[in-house]
Amino acid sequence: MNGAKSLVETLLASGVDTCFANPGTSEMHFVAALDQIPGMKCVLGLQENIVTGMADGYFRIARKPACTLLHCGPGLANGLGNLHNARRARSGIVNIVGDQATYHRPFDAPLTADTDGMARTVSQWVQTSTSPAGLGHDAALAVRAAKTYPGQIATLILPADVSWEGGGVVAAPITPPAPPAIDGHVVENAARILRNNQNVLILLAGHGVLSAAQALAWRIASATGAKVMADYVSAHVARGRGRMQLDRVPYDMDAAISALQPFEHIILVNAKPPVGFFGYPELPSRQYSPTTQLHVLSRPDQDAVGALKALVDALSAPEVENSDPGPRPETVSGTPTPEGLAQTLAALMPENSIISDESISYGRGFYKFTHAAPAHDWLHLAGGAIGDGMPVATGAAIGAGKQRRVINLQADGSAMYSLQSLWTQARDQLPVTTIILNNSKYNILIGEYKNVGAVPGDTAMSMLDLGNPFLNWVQLANGMGVEAARATTLDECADLMKSSFNRNGPFLIELMI
Amino acid sequence: MNGAKSLVETLLASGVDTCFANPGTSEMHFVAALDQIPGMKCVLGLQENIVTGMADGYFRIARKPACTLLHCGPGLANGLGNLHNARRARSGIVNIVGDQATYHRPFDAPLTADTDGMARTVSQWVQTSTSPAGLGHDAALAVRAAKTYPGQIATLILPADVSWEGGGVVAAPITPPAPPAIDGHVVENAARILRNNQNVLILLAGHGVLSAAQALAWRIASATGAKVMADYVSAHVARGRGRMQLDRVPYDMDAAISALQPFEHIILVNAKPPVGFFGYPELPSRQYSPTTQLHVLSRPDQDAVGALKALVDALSAPEVENSDPGPRPETVSGTPTPEGLAQTLAALMPENSIISDESISYGRGFYKFTHAAPAHDWLHLAGGAIGDGMPVATGAAIGAGKQRRVINLQADGSAMYSLQSLWTQARDQLPVTTIILNNSKYNILIGEYKNVGAVPGDTAMSMLDLGNPFLNWVQLANGMGVEAARATTLDECADLMKSSFNRNGPFLIELMI
Repeated sequence: MNGAKSLVETLLASGVDTCFANPGTSEMHFVAALDQIPGMKCVLGLQENIVTGMADGYFRIARKPACTLLHCGPGLANGLGNLHNARRARSGIVNIVGDQATYHRPFDAPLTADTDGMARTVSQWVQTSTSPAGLGHDAALAVRAAKTYPGQIATLILPADVSWEGGGVVAAPITPPAPPAIDGHVVENAARILRNNQNVLILLAGHGVLSAAQALAWRIASATGAKVMADYVSAHVARGRGRMQLDRVPYDMDAAISALQPFEHIILVNAKPPVGFFGYPELPSRQYSPTTQLHVLSRPDQDAVGALKALVDALSAPEVENSDPGPRPETVSGTPTPEGLAQTLAALMPENSIISDESISYGRGFYKFTHAAPAHDWLHLAGGAIGDGMPVATGAAIGAGKQRRVINLQADGSAMYSLQSLWTQARDQLPVTTIILNNSKYNILIGEYKNVGAVPGDTAMSMLDLGNPFLNWVQLANGMGVEAARATTLDECADLMKSSFNRNGPFLIELMI
Repeated sequence: MNGAKSLVETLLASGVDTCFANPGTSEMHFVAALDQIPGMKCVLGLQENIVTGMADGYFRIARKPACTLLHCGPGLANGLGNLHNARRARSGIVNIVGDQATYHRPFDAPLTADTDGMARTVSQWVQTSTSPAGLGHDAALAVRAAKTYPGQIATLILPADVSWEGGGVVAAPITPPAPPAIDGHVVENAARILRNNQNVLILLAGHGVLSAAQALAWRIASATGAKVMADYVSAHVARGRGRMQLDRVPYDMDAAISALQPFEHIILVNAKPPVGFFGYPELPSRQYSPTTQLHVLSRPDQDAVGALKALVDALSAPEVENSDPGPRPETVSGTPTPEGLAQTLAALMPENSIISDESISYGRGFYKFTHAAPAHDWLHLAGGAIGDGMPVATGAAIGAGKQRRVINLQADGSAMYSLQSLWTQARDQLPVTTIILNNSKYNILIGEYKNVGAVPGDTAMSMLDLGNPFLNWVQLANGMGVEAARATTLDECADLMKSSFNRNGPFLIELMI
């Protein structure tokens, strides 16, 4: 058995059965092994940032890692942006990066690069396999690393000769370590703070914003009068009817400071201390008051549900009914507005939808109008590297086995980073409805420029405007085999949403905002 | 004066007057400085690999570095693929990478990444500026590094507060070092080898394949009977009437070995010892015979023209007439073939055209049929990371001040890596004719798979075929504001080429092959 076959068999034995790929010459023996061993679903992305973004979206919904197949250092480099986002989202991914044969690497052929150095910038685990006999074990270790709670980026670099030479050994799965236990003193401290203070915020992130943890947080809040919020950096929030009406810490620095400043105590549940996305002149880095006390109930690598359960027990917090979010909104007519689009979305989204939200500036207020929508999962850009919305939507659809409607709320500037995703959606006939929010500019940056203290001049606008020439998203989608239509009113958008939700395959709505 | 303004003033004083950009929040003060200080041409790319690829193409034609403007580590990461290619092409580029404010970095906000680590994987020079007072000097050092012969990647990381704080000082340009001198003994040795042996190859790369060096190599070959070839890894070859009929070492390993094996001596002029693009089972890494003697006349960082001139003098090699490449080919009719397309190209290309060649498998034989074309520059993918053809074409058009026709011979699979380039071509009305070679597959990989010893099965083809759905390049180009048409015969292709060469702006021909 060559190394490649032992690798495929080990991945399958370890529960990795989906491979997002853009292979090259040095991966051909691995591709041949995938051909010969049934069981791995292979999904082609036309650029590596699509590949890695799909693996991120897949993990967020399937809650298990896929592998990626990437070609040499530069192929990995092309996918680093969305691996950065996946790392911030705490997604688990096993990257298989084919590379020069071990004996060929010293000759510094053109594609030779610092693959290991590139991998280390985004990975919690990196290893270069050096023999077919050890490759299976390396792969089992990679999967273990990717599955380590809540999820990690593991990169296995695979020299071509390690792949093609004989002597491969299939390795048994290796159980990932349990998350570090929550110390009882920490729970007792949090309970004491909650009992004795009124100005307490419970800040949730990671698994803390999924439904099981939310229900526990809601019991604690009801019993103690504490406030609950989601960290701005939340990759995946369970929302809609039956879940908490959870607000996120705002992106805007002034708004975030206003929201957090009042709290004397913040209890962190898998959240980091909240800080600004960027530093700004005259503004602090921290969004909470200098006098706020922070209490870590659970670190990001600890079990959020277990921590909240222990706190519920310590407080003897009674069960509570879910709060009623009010009636489901109705569709809105007329000129597109963020509020109108959010209400229309809430009115129409199918039960158990997945929202991939890279709406950037347009979508800051979407939460308020969608609490009363049917239960759904909302996926956010967690790492700030634009270009994850479309591939995450694509991977999420695969992670859900094509059984759930995915709705991608997508800013146009960010969409141009990874538009190739549409082709994979068409190829795999994925139930993804993309709503391009076409404002023909990098609107967030025009706002940031104004914060610098001036109106953008011609040179600045040459770098911030996307309107010349006009990006025609209907043509772009059609060019990649995705049906599409333009909407200039919310009524048209609603009609297109409804019809797209009844399709099996993808559809793109270009909403002029 | 804030840091940003001192940076812009220093870049301009150092001769850097073109900025390929995709800025973000942390770059807004730099963008504002570009607004306030005239003289910098700013060109927006819709994804960073377009930005860096344009800077590479610009350098190859303008022969001076541009700067790029990139947003944080992930923005740099998105551009690493084409920086890898630019490094292999020995192009000079000054990357300005905005990053978190120095005091904000420790808070590990979402976009915080190992920017320095990412930069080091592709750059010969990396520095993070730490004060506005030192930023101008850092920028002058960066330009010096980028201009160091034959060209280097310099990356200046610019924390946002270093950009916005006062105390900036404009720095005077710093002269780059002269290339290390060629030792007289090396020249004498090469002359002795050439005088005493018949089986000698002069292998040219870098500036060795530009016209001045070619003329000198031709004199040496005529005087001694040596053979001359261009390294396969040549970023920019001067070709056509008035230049040598120079062949490149073939890509195919067997063909390369056949071509190089006969030579007892290889004299390297800015070329590295020729090795395979990849290692293959049962094949050696080196393409030359184990008994071949290598002689380094000039290293890649030494002056190729000076070295060849010294060798001409040592040999007293007389001036020679340029060899006649024969009559200019005529256009070819009928079904597209590589040979027919090359002849049609040779028949129609305007004098002084620039060819950006990312034709991959289809284009291996283009040279043979284009020797008798008018003088032109031929740009190749030097680093093997696909996706450079379109942005290099775009940057080359800007580097030529829009005064030369650029013809991009572009494989479809590689084109999907950086199709956003078309938008910049339309925005800046660049004279680029793109010929998409649409075969709807990763043809090179299907060949490589067969080398593994089998016909690709369904799983393999799911990763190698691009035909489902069909990529419609006319629609894709139109969607980005570029006029386009499909050709299914060489006659149609010729007609479209002719009409596109009379336009001011871009045009795309989708050639079905």
